[in-house]
Amino acid sequence: MKRTELVENILRKGSFLCVGLDPDPAKMPAELAAKGADGIIEFNKAIVDATSPFAVAYKPNLAFYETLGPDGMRAFEETCAYIRANHPDQFIIADAKRGDIGNTARMYAKAFFERAGVDAVTVAPYMGEDSVTPFLGFDDKWAIVLALTSNKGSADFQMIPDVNGARIFERVVKRSQKWGSPVNMMYVVGATRGELIADVRALAPRHFFLVPGVGAQGGSLEEVCRYGMIDEVGLLVNSSRGIIHASNLLDDFAQKAAISARALRDEMAAILEERGLI
Amino acid sequence: MKRTELVENILRKGSFLCVGLDPDPAKMPAELAAKGADGIIEFNKAIVDATSPFAVAYKPNLAFYETLGPDGMRAFEETCAYIRANHPDQFIIADAKRGDIGNTARMYAKAFFERAGVDAVTVAPYMGEDSVTPFLGFDDKWAIVLALTSNKGSADFQMIPDVNGARIFERVVKRSQKWGSPVNMMYVVGATRGELIADVRALAPRHFFLVPGVGAQGGSLEEVCRYGMIDEVGLLVNSSRGIIHASNLLDDFAQKAAISARALRDEMAAILEERGLI
Repeated sequence: MKRTELVENILRKGSFLCVGLDPDPAKMPAELAAKGADGIIEFNKAIVDATSPFAVAYKPNLAFYETLGPDGMRAFEETCAYIRANHPDQFIIADAKRGDIGNTARMYAKAFFERAGVDAVTVAPYMGEDSVTPFLGFDDKWAIVLALTSNKGSADFQMIPDVNGARIFERVVKRSQKWGSPVNMMYVVGATRGELIADVRALAPRHFFLVPGVGAQGGSLEEVCRYGMIDEVGLLVNSSRGIIHASNLLDDFAQKAAISARALRDEMAAILEERGLI
Repeated sequence: MKRTELVENILRKGSFLCVGLDPDPAKMPAELAAKGADGIIEFNKAIVDATSPFAVAYKPNLAFYETLGPDGMRAFEETCAYIRANHPDQFIIADAKRGDIGNTARMYAKAFFERAGVDAVTVAPYMGEDSVTPFLGFDDKWAIVLALTSNKGSADFQMIPDVNGARIFERVVKRSQKWGSPVNMMYVVGATRGELIADVRALAPRHFFLVPGVGAQGGSLEEVCRYGMIDEVGLLVNSSRGIIHASNLLDDFAQKAAISARALRDEMAAILEERGLI
């Protein structure tokens, strides 16, 4: 998907919500959990159909599929195919956090962009340029580079300052802009520390940020927008558990997911209106 | 596998060779490449049977399997199952370079250790402690943390010095030793720069290093051993293409792989003898 189309979808829907498709069998309706990979496909389809009016992106996390082996990979691919076929205005992100060199990175890129047909893949920057650029050579496809994550361990390496005081996450954001541009690269920027979002925004004034950590992980939507929003919005805010596991009952899980997604969309629309963007 | 058993295997075989199972259809015998995932399983089995006398470890790189989708994951799992059943003294490394937080990392760990039954998984450290420790809680299983990779992009972030002059790869090696020990953690240390191997060895005197980059990527076995070898060997040196794609003919690819593996084993045995380890 092109950046212009993504921005149009956001403004039309009044939403920059990304729904994390991380189905946890222990929190799914028991009837679906009992069906293994097929149950996950059924679950995802119902969640997507119910929440699509309020969301602009879906983000399956590969770990939740790989843990089921070949059947899980089938569930991942069928979920992506279903979204593409039935909700073609949705931006699909494979949250895979891949990072490997040249040849190998190219294989991952082909697996996700050509086989699964997703729009974007999350990529870990530790191995540097030749681990990221292989994801940038596909038309209208995106690499979403981990810059600043929202977990406790992000302090271990991402926050280390170099001799000039630039922290590693800032080096990642600066350096990676030589490889990609705001039309084929985004950054993962955790929601839990507002002022750090501002630091990334200062270095990357036009890039989209994929922001996890709102809701269950404690980040505030209002703060994320204060520090990260730009004229073309520039934010995709992810929520997973709070939406997809809002209920574990077969007869209302999709409806409850829609209610949660709509509530977030309404908050988002209010912020977009306040800023005069819609 | 326990460390003591790994060291015993190395000394008994006179080899610290890890064979990278990265089957590239374009370089495989055409008859096998034509069979897709089934051809890869057949290829891997023949390679493993032929090279097992000269190797102590196998390292399938997940990208080469994921690129084939669910069928590829089946090929990965069947390859691992075949090695466990028929060559139980081999150490199996899933080269996945995973890196994600708590819950998600635990799912990856379960997928690899419990489903596929491998001994070790390569892990990217960018997200810090809570992305590595979930791989450390399994009996006789290992996390192999990326410290210093052998690609060009390794200079982008791994080599950046902090205010005290410690480079990020050194921070990774130091910090991660608070999380794991020489019996459940190894490091990936690229072979292309001997003196850097010495720098990592100075910080991690007992840990095993998984060393890619010997052969095709230009690293020298002799140099790796000079800078990295310890009394308990402490090295697994990987070779992929040079062994598994030594020939692309159906009637001799396994035999040629064995010849290449044996040649490396002989070099390794000579070094081990020279040092009085065998």
